[in-house]
Amino acid sequence: MKILIVNGPNMNLLGKREPDIYGKNSLDTINKELIEYKDTIDKAIELEFFQSNHEGEIIDKIQNTDANGIIINPAGYTHTSIALGDCIKGVNIPTVEVHLSNINAREEYRKISKTASSCIGQISGFQKDSYKLALIGLYNYLKTL
Amino acid sequence: MKILIVNGPNMNLLGKREPDIYGKNSLDTINKELIEYKDTIDKAIELEFFQSNHEGEIIDKIQNTDANGIIINPAGYTHTSIALGDCIKGVNIPTVEVHLSNINAREEYRKISKTASSCIGQISGFQKDSYKLALIGLYNYLKTL
Amino acid sequence: MKILIVNGPNMNLLGKREPDIYGKNSLDTINKELIEYKDTIDKAIELEFFQSNHEGEIIDKIQNTDANGIIINPAGYTHTSIALGDCIKGVNIPTVEVHLSNINAREEYRKISKTASSCIGQISGFQKDSYKLALIGLYNYLKTL
Amino acid sequence: MKILIVNGPNMNLLGKREPDIYGKNSLDTINKELIEYKDTIDKAIELEFFQSNHEGEIIDKIQNTDANGIIINPAGYTHTSIALGDCIKGVNIPTVEVHLSNINAREEYRKISKTASSCIGQISGFQKDSYKLALIGLYNYLKTL
Amino acid sequence: MKILIVNGPNMNLLGKREPDIYGKNSLDTINKELIEYKDTIDKAIELEFFQSNHEGEIIDKIQNTDANGIIINPAGYTHTSIALGDCIKGVNIPTVEVHLSNINAREEYRKISKTASSCIGQISGFQKDSYKLALIGLYNYLKTL
Amino acid sequence: MKILIVNGPNMNLLGKREPDIYGKNSLDTINKELIEYKDTIDKAIELEFFQSNHEGEIIDKIQNTDANGIIINPAGYTHTSIALGDCIKGVNIPTVEVHLSNINAREEYRKISKTASSCIGQISGFQKDSYKLALIGLYNYLKTL
Amino acid sequence: MKILIVNGPNMNLLGKREPDIYGKNSLDTINKELIEYKDTIDKAIELEFFQSNHEGEIIDKIQNTDANGIIINPAGYTHTSIALGDCIKGVNIPTVEVHLSNINAREEYRKISKTASSCIGQISGFQKDSYKLALIGLYNYLKTL
Amino acid sequence: MKILIVNGPNMNLLGKREPDIYGKNSLDTINKELIEYKDTIDKAIELEFFQSNHEGEIIDKIQNTDANGIIINPAGYTHTSIALGDCIKGVNIPTVEVHLSNINAREEYRKISKTASSCIGQISGFQKDSYKLALIGLYNYLKTL
Amino acid sequence: MKILIVNGPNMNLLGKREPDIYGKNSLDTINKELIEYKDTIDKAIELEFFQSNHEGEIIDKIQNTDANGIIINPAGYTHTSIALGDCIKGVNIPTVEVHLSNINAREEYRKISKTASSCIGQISGFQKDSYKLALIGLYNYLKTL
Amino acid sequence: MKILIVNGPNMNLLGKREPDIYGKNSLDTINKELIEYKDTIDKAIELEFFQSNHEGEIIDKIQNTDANGIIINPAGYTHTSIALGDCIKGVNIPTVEVHLSNINAREEYRKISKTASSCIGQISGFQKDSYKLALIGLYNYLKTL
Amino acid sequence: MKILIVNGPNMNLLGKREPDIYGKNSLDTINKELIEYKDTIDKAIELEFFQSNHEGEIIDKIQNTDANGIIINPAGYTHTSIALGDCIKGVNIPTVEVHLSNINAREEYRKISKTASSCIGQISGFQKDSYKLALIGLYNYLKTL
Amino acid sequence: MKILIVNGPNMNLLGKREPDIYGKNSLDTINKELIEYKDTIDKAIELEFFQSNHEGEIIDKIQNTDANGIIINPAGYTHTSIALGDCIKGVNIPTVEVHLSNINAREEYRKISKTASSCIGQISGFQKDSYKLALIGLYNYLKTL
Repeated sequence: MKILIVNGPNMNLLGKREPDIYGKNSLDTINKELIEYKDTIDKAIELEFFQSNHEGEIIDKIQNTDANGIIINPAGYTHTSIALGDCIKGVNIPTVEVHLSNINAREEYRKISKTASSCIGQISGFQKDSYKLALIGLYNYLKTL
Repeated sequence: MKILIVNGPNMNLLGKREPDIYGKNSLDTINKELIEYKDTIDKAIELEFFQSNHEGEIIDKIQNTDANGIIINPAGYTHTSIALGDCIKGVNIPTVEVHLSNINAREEYRKISKTASSCIGQISGFQKDSYKLALIGLYNYLKTL
Repeated sequence: MKILIVNGPNMNLLGKREPDIYGKNSLDTINKELIEYKDTIDKAIELEFFQSNHEGEIIDKIQNTDANGIIINPAGYTHTSIALGDCIKGVNIPTVEVHLSNINAREEYRKISKTASSCIGQISGFQKDSYKLALIGLYNYLKTL
Repeated sequence: MKILIVNGPNMNLLGKREPDIYGKNSLDTINKELIEYKDTIDKAIELEFFQSNHEGEIIDKIQNTDANGIIINPAGYTHTSIALGDCIKGVNIPTVEVHLSNINAREEYRKISKTASSCIGQISGFQKDSYKLALIGLYNYLKTL
Repeated sequence: MKILIVNGPNMNLLGKREPDIYGKNSLDTINKELIEYKDTIDKAIELEFFQSNHEGEIIDKIQNTDANGIIINPAGYTHTSIALGDCIKGVNIPTVEVHLSNINAREEYRKISKTASSCIGQISGFQKDSYKLALIGLYNYLKTL
Repeated sequence: MKILIVNGPNMNLLGKREPDIYGKNSLDTINKELIEYKDTIDKAIELEFFQSNHEGEIIDKIQNTDANGIIINPAGYTHTSIALGDCIKGVNIPTVEVHLSNINAREEYRKISKTASSCIGQISGFQKDSYKLALIGLYNYLKTL
Repeated sequence: MKILIVNGPNMNLLGKREPDIYGKNSLDTINKELIEYKDTIDKAIELEFFQSNHEGEIIDKIQNTDANGIIINPAGYTHTSIALGDCIKGVNIPTVEVHLSNINAREEYRKISKTASSCIGQISGFQKDSYKLALIGLYNYLKTL
Repeated sequence: MKILIVNGPNMNLLGKREPDIYGKNSLDTINKELIEYKDTIDKAIELEFFQSNHEGEIIDKIQNTDANGIIINPAGYTHTSIALGDCIKGVNIPTVEVHLSNINAREEYRKISKTASSCIGQISGFQKDSYKLALIGLYNYLKTL
Repeated sequence: MKILIVNGPNMNLLGKREPDIYGKNSLDTINKELIEYKDTIDKAIELEFFQSNHEGEIIDKIQNTDANGIIINPAGYTHTSIALGDCIKGVNIPTVEVHLSNINAREEYRKISKTASSCIGQISGFQKDSYKLALIGLYNYLKTL
Repeated sequence: MKILIVNGPNMNLLGKREPDIYGKNSLDTINKELIEYKDTIDKAIELEFFQSNHEGEIIDKIQNTDANGIIINPAGYTHTSIALGDCIKGVNIPTVEVHLSNINAREEYRKISKTASSCIGQISGFQKDSYKLALIGLYNYLKTL
Repeated sequence: MKILIVNGPNMNLLGKREPDIYGKNSLDTINKELIEYKDTIDKAIELEFFQSNHEGEIIDKIQNTDANGIIINPAGYTHTSIALGDCIKGVNIPTVEVHLSNINAREEYRKISKTASSCIGQISGFQKDSYKLALIGLYNYLKTL
Repeated sequence: MKILIVNGPNMNLLGKREPDIYGKNSLDTINKELIEYKDTIDKAIELEFFQSNHEGEIIDKIQNTDANGIIINPAGYTHTSIALGDCIKGVNIPTVEVHLSNINAREEYRKISKTASSCIGQISGFQKDSYKLALIGLYNYLKTL
């Protein structure tokens, strides 16, 4: 079972970018911790990591992946990208949307996601744990298929 | 460590109520499964379950609990209750909002939560697993305090 | 065949409450007249009356009724209660929404019902006759099932 | 006592037109059943039937009728015709608005009626019975004048 | 002359709840101070205090009171409860709406009250003094009747 | 110089229709008075009167007129008819829109005209004098061409 | 019979200001022409002219006038001044609102007047003739009082 | 195979009406050219032309046609007529909506069509060629049935 | 302790202006009564009265006052003047906003104040008593500084 | 004459992506069919095909093309890309917007195109034929230049 | 070359007024610094300074100036004054709008300017330097005329 | 001191693209002129130029720059890119937003910037001088740090 972890624009700045909101961990730290964590669930899980600031590259990646499931933090594209939502629906791979911060407690425009309706679920507010929770949720979901 | 699990209006109908959306498990089944599950996290966790169709009773319960954290599925009150949001903010107990279905993929009015901004995070779409994910997330959060 | 007649908040004030809008009959008078009226349709119809100012109590009642059909005047909750609409959809008992006054000819916010989409139909503007018309409509509907 | 039954645009297609929404009865069948039904109320009631796809013809008809009351299904004009609403208010004949389907459970734009505020009441969702209920309600109303 | 003082949801948390916004006095302290204060106006004034987190209980209480006037802080129900507004209009007892904080200087959704239009006036922003000012205003109003 | 006076839906009810708003004069009275009045301006003016409740007939009439100018009271079509506005722009005959009542002091939806932007000007609120003022304004305008 | 002619902000620029929209006549020319014109109606009419760019001065003037009627072109204040609308309603002197250009055919924000609902009528689009038509309309109105 | 070509209000003014937007061809010219053109597709196609300024007549025509497909330019009714949209859906004849001008590049209110959702497709902006393209598209569509 | 009482546009018309809404007292009467009343609070309070119809004069006055607190009824400027709100915030003098009528029970546009968010509190609906209540509230507030 | 055919994000998934909406043909199949088709119009037409999921690459391509005309299906960028609309307007090459599905009959947000106003016309709903119709329309348009 | 520097309401409070937003310099300091600065551009530039809290005085000043260009900080009138925008357009003198703070990063209502569309450009966010930049920009612009 | 000058989509078309709006200078010309200009400020300033039509490339560039300040013309992304705004906030480098044209005087959707709130200021309307003014403003700002 392979899971693709996609991080959208500016997620590569994590740790430096507005740490009050997004925490002090770098994306690399989060990814490494996630690799350790996935072994506690099932060592057979394979994780692939991908980060891009390009809407188009993210769509390309998702179209070409052979993953069984996707965890995506679309970051700034969450609220603007119909193309990304169409992509997730188009490839028909179970996808979970995650956010580090609780997007319901921020600016009005961050409360509505244009991509989440193409996903099986959404998790927000648990900082780096958002990815872990998504991994469990997605893993369980894939096992029921 | 004590966690209060609050379920809002019509959650007691689970299993019978629109099973295509909310699944076929009764609330009792979900609760029992959650008790088993929490032992896999930490046997010291104590769970208390509460369900009510009354906005006021839910507020009373939250005000009077001695729990360290709360997991709440506000159901229909998610989108209408400022009083419930005020309550969560008022008692200052870390709270996670959960939904069985992916509320981003349903009617427009279900996309905005009036309670989630008072919570630390929100999880939706994983059916009964939404509670499990919330439990892990909340447990980890409480341990960092 | 049992029909539950539910009246929402402030309906117990009928006769005293803004009589220009809601008429001069008390709820008791309306109920008694409805009992007489139902005999002209079918003596086998059993009526149960319930009034509450509590959103939660109304939901409890509807969840626990063994009635074959429901006539409900949600009054002030008509325009605010998603929980009540969810409840009617959840119990899956044919329900008719009634209003004494013509809600289309009043304040803007009274023109949209959050509960009517869960019902089989809506009747408004016939004062106490709204209940009688609902009874005939519901009776006929139940007989076709 | 004479009652004019007005049916608006596309109501002549009934039975053929989207039967899942509007039922399988032709307008003729509905009218005949209504004639039989009115005798059970009061044989002295006289019914006149009128259908037109023309907003102007409907207004002409209502302006020139000698009926004591009107039952109208404005169909597509329900949501667009200020002129028709002005007409009903202008002739000052008690009028009941009816709809076969429950307009509260359909597209957003079908939830608001531009004509109902000129009527004494509105009935929707009972298929052909909507007309029967309107007849009783209107008959009772006219007898109280 | 009897005055009923109604406090809505979460007002029992006063002193503990977000003290930066709502001040450090408990509701009990405010009530006691109000009792002392009313003697400086007119010892013949009788005060009754009522707090509830239940919309329905507040409506029940207002319907059943024998008070000559009401001072109400609807708290979170201020912005959502049509039923409470209908109740105040229905019982026809002069009512003053109060708020501890200045609701005009907070979140957008707190600027519109669904209950104030049923009251004779509204006072906000004077912390515990809001109740005192309401008492004077209501007392004077009742004496002019 | 020929002027066409067009009156829209329900204008034939004038005198009977909501006299508090529209005055007690019949359309015939208004027309006759206008004929007398036009002689005081210029006897060479020829007036043609046309009233219809049909949007299509009004468009037909305007398309086929040989008048030099048009005075139109679109009544209920004022706020809904893009087709009528397109027609006035299409025939390119100078047109003045009139209203008996002051449409700025009535319901919100009567404040916006969908036809007035195709006209040279708009006059509202002078009851039957609205037509007279329009006649002078249009006459002067036509003389400057 | 005295009529006050009030012109709002930037009307003193007429002739120079955007002549494509407002014409080439100066305000002085318009006023002089109006004086000549009023004699053709009734020499007993007395006209007083007032122009100001100050919202407050216009309100002062209207409050202190002994005129029997007012013709006002509120210009830019048309769309923003609640105070001016309150003033016209407050002094209770019959007032006609005029505009040189057809405000219905310009920017969206010029289509709604905040002052016209306090007036007896509104005339727009006839350039300098707007004032003449207003004078006739107001004169006739005042004679019927 | 018979195709009905319906043209809505003011389309009979083509050539004279705002030629900058709608071109210089008369409707007759367009129709004749279309007859020649259809022979290049399939001589067996039969064309019937219908133009009316009456919403009701257009609905009557569509209800009574024996055509296999419809090409309609609803003109001004495009943006206002729910009745016409209901009609197209009701008769269940494949229909293509056409516009001479590119409605996406004009006034805001011309961007939304109330009829196009009942059609199989929409073509706008190709002037008289819009009809030709619609004919090919509709012809191909009908052949696949 | 000096308190400045500012009254905005048209407040000088009080007694004559729409007495059903604003009461029958002149501003002078209200002011005199307030002077007597302030002695019952604290004779050391000094009151200064200021009324103007000019937004700019009100801003000038507030900028130049040496008062310790301000009571302001911005009247028509309440709903339009960002400049006045900026001014109150800028001078940093504790200010209370008052209204004679209950602005929550009037037109929609009167429900939102653009100045109240710069004030410590708002009082509306007590007619002339609104000023008295404001005086007590402001006095107590100033004493806590 | 060279025509550039641009397909936007996820169009490379055609055939696999939501076939109920977008049909079962792959983009390659559509392109090949279009090449055959163009020969029936004019063998001298040269077609170039381009697909990208990157908004920026599409803009680059359009800026650098030497085509005489463009057919574009902007897919998900239709509703979000002001930059793409600016690009089409900037290069000043006649462009036709196409959609496989009828975007008027889908989600609300798909009804408004941010790119179509820069094009000469728009065609939607004819599945793969949309491209063919666009080719004819564009070819004819280019020949009139 | 003469440049008029206009500062709107509350700008005379600079240095004292909300220094976190507007900085600690008084308007006098800013003006003096600007005089020194203009010499570095061109000693032939003449500066005239004007500040007023009165919308009408600002309009008067602009109408009567003999300046070749205007730099205006409309402060609170930026977002409300159509009259001021009309004035700038009316006098046809090149004008630059400036703001000390970045109005795009403040309250929603400060993001839209009602005056900027009448200006040649807008500069915001550079504190006192906003005026200097405006001076260069305006100077260069005037030299190209 | 190094300044990065970023130009967004279609800015490479300058000179050819809609010259009435954007002027006749190519981007290259503007850049060269800016290089000359910066020497008049401070020869030590180093300028780096970057143009891209790709949202992602612009974000990449800004994330990786070692510049002390940024001047950005986001062009079409100004109104749609939350990701770009997040990026500017994330790198925490002082940034100035510029526009050639006065965006306040164009289409409604160009009046709101999604990126400007992350910048220190915004300059629009001075054509190529917008960059020069930005350079001075940014230079001065950086020197105060």
